[in-house]
Amino acid sequence: MTYCVGLHLRDGLVLLSDTRTNAGVDNISIFGKMQVEEIAGDRVLAVLSAGNLAITQAVWNRLQEGVSLGNEVLTLRTVTSMFRAAQLVGQAVREVFAADGPTLKAQGVGFDISLLLGGQIASGPPRLFLVYAAGNFIEATADTPFLQIGEHKYGKPILDRALEHGTSLEDGVKLVLVSMDSTLRSNLTVGLPIDLLVYRADTLSVGLRRRITEEDAYFRGVRERWSAALREAYLRLPPPDWLAEASGPG
Amino acid sequence: MTYCVGLHLRDGLVLLSDTRTNAGVDNISIFGKMQVEEIAGDRVLAVLSAGNLAITQAVWNRLQEGVSLGNEVLTLRTVTSMFRAAQLVGQAVREVFAADGPTLKAQGVGFDISLLLGGQIASGPPRLFLVYAAGNFIEATADTPFLQIGEHKYGKPILDRALEHGTSLEDGVKLVLVSMDSTLRSNLTVGLPIDLLVYRADTLSVGLRRRITEEDAYFRGVRERWSAALREAYLRLPPPDWLAEASGPG
Repeated sequence: MTYCVGLHLRDGLVLLSDTRTNAGVDNISIFGKMQVEEIAGDRVLAVLSAGNLAITQAVWNRLQEGVSLGNEVLTLRTVTSMFRAAQLVGQAVREVFAADGPTLKAQGVGFDISLLLGGQIASGPPRLFLVYAAGNFIEATADTPFLQIGEHKYGKPILDRALEHGTSLEDGVKLVLVSMDSTLRSNLTVGLPIDLLVYRADTLSVGLRRRITEEDAYFRGVRERWSAALREAYLRLPPPDWLAEASGPG
Repeated sequence: MTYCVGLHLRDGLVLLSDTRTNAGVDNISIFGKMQVEEIAGDRVLAVLSAGNLAITQAVWNRLQEGVSLGNEVLTLRTVTSMFRAAQLVGQAVREVFAADGPTLKAQGVGFDISLLLGGQIASGPPRLFLVYAAGNFIEATADTPFLQIGEHKYGKPILDRALEHGTSLEDGVKLVLVSMDSTLRSNLTVGLPIDLLVYRADTLSVGLRRRITEEDAYFRGVRERWSAALREAYLRLPPPDWLAEASGPG
């Protein structure tokens, strides 16, 4: 399993992925799920992937080698807009589906992949897409400024409650770390280290790219403080008035 | 979908279920998912159910009419221990599977049910079980003092972090309400009203049974305060030191 989350904020993008892959619970490996293309001053693109590792690597390899879009063979380094980049990723997924889908189906294996694509190209705005296994895609907007792939449920409540398009990049980083922490605690197949990318709008270069391990003092502090804060917060909730009435002091 | 959660605390049991059932998103109804048997001074038992409504109602009807266990036909009002009660619920599930399973399978419908059974009988201790579709079951222990069925992921992080076997009934009520709130916000097929039962150990009578609606002032307060507390808590987290170093103030 995997958990990846992307934030589409007014000030830029925050992207976070875990690195655990597993073929059964007794075969666990570390594979980065975030691939980044940067041409400083021209573009930053990041692709985060969830699903069957052979499929996601096949998609990434095709994106590196070039994918036909219309009459051209393009890569993430040559495509001219984020919309075209999303089409390119979708087209790469469809090519892998055409090549591998029939055999996978014959062997009863689903064609399981989803991807986040975030970035900015030249004078276009920063954009964040979720590309499905069918190669089609949706885009994050100001109304729903985050997208998730993989094991998304544990880490969703905090984003639903606290994230807004106007949230700062710094607060966005805190929120994705808390969201990832909830997922790490509840699902063993999502694991450390995690890969973080912060992109500030219109800089056209990667602001921060960081692999966060068990030893990262800041992340450890976030985990401890967050647990303590939640415990405090629920203890501070007033007791239910109807409970005291029904069953006496206790 | 459904969300039900049960807490097995030192002081007793806290059980909470939603009431939404749906056959597609355009066919939503309210059905109670918590059935309670009480013989004051002798026993309190509650059964919470998730899954196909026809299957869960068939199980409940059989439990009312009597299920063969060994040489006897028993109900939850006549069974002599919580362990036997869990066996009885499992046996009812197996009877329904024997009766309806083949036709459901022929029509491509899964045999989808899970149940929580909590309560206390006579001088035995309070116990909490999760009964699977196969009729077998597990029990909550002091190490893992809660069990969930249905849409369990959104509401799990807060329980993982804050709940202990020694948590008071009052705090347990707060925690299941917060856990339910996270689920209600993130999954439309889990809906209000919700049904709460609080059972204090060794009382052998229902301490509190309450249907909580949109209008419940306490629950509304919990929802608002919890959202506010989470927002405050993440804002109070210190900023990542490595972010400031990498990308300057902002």
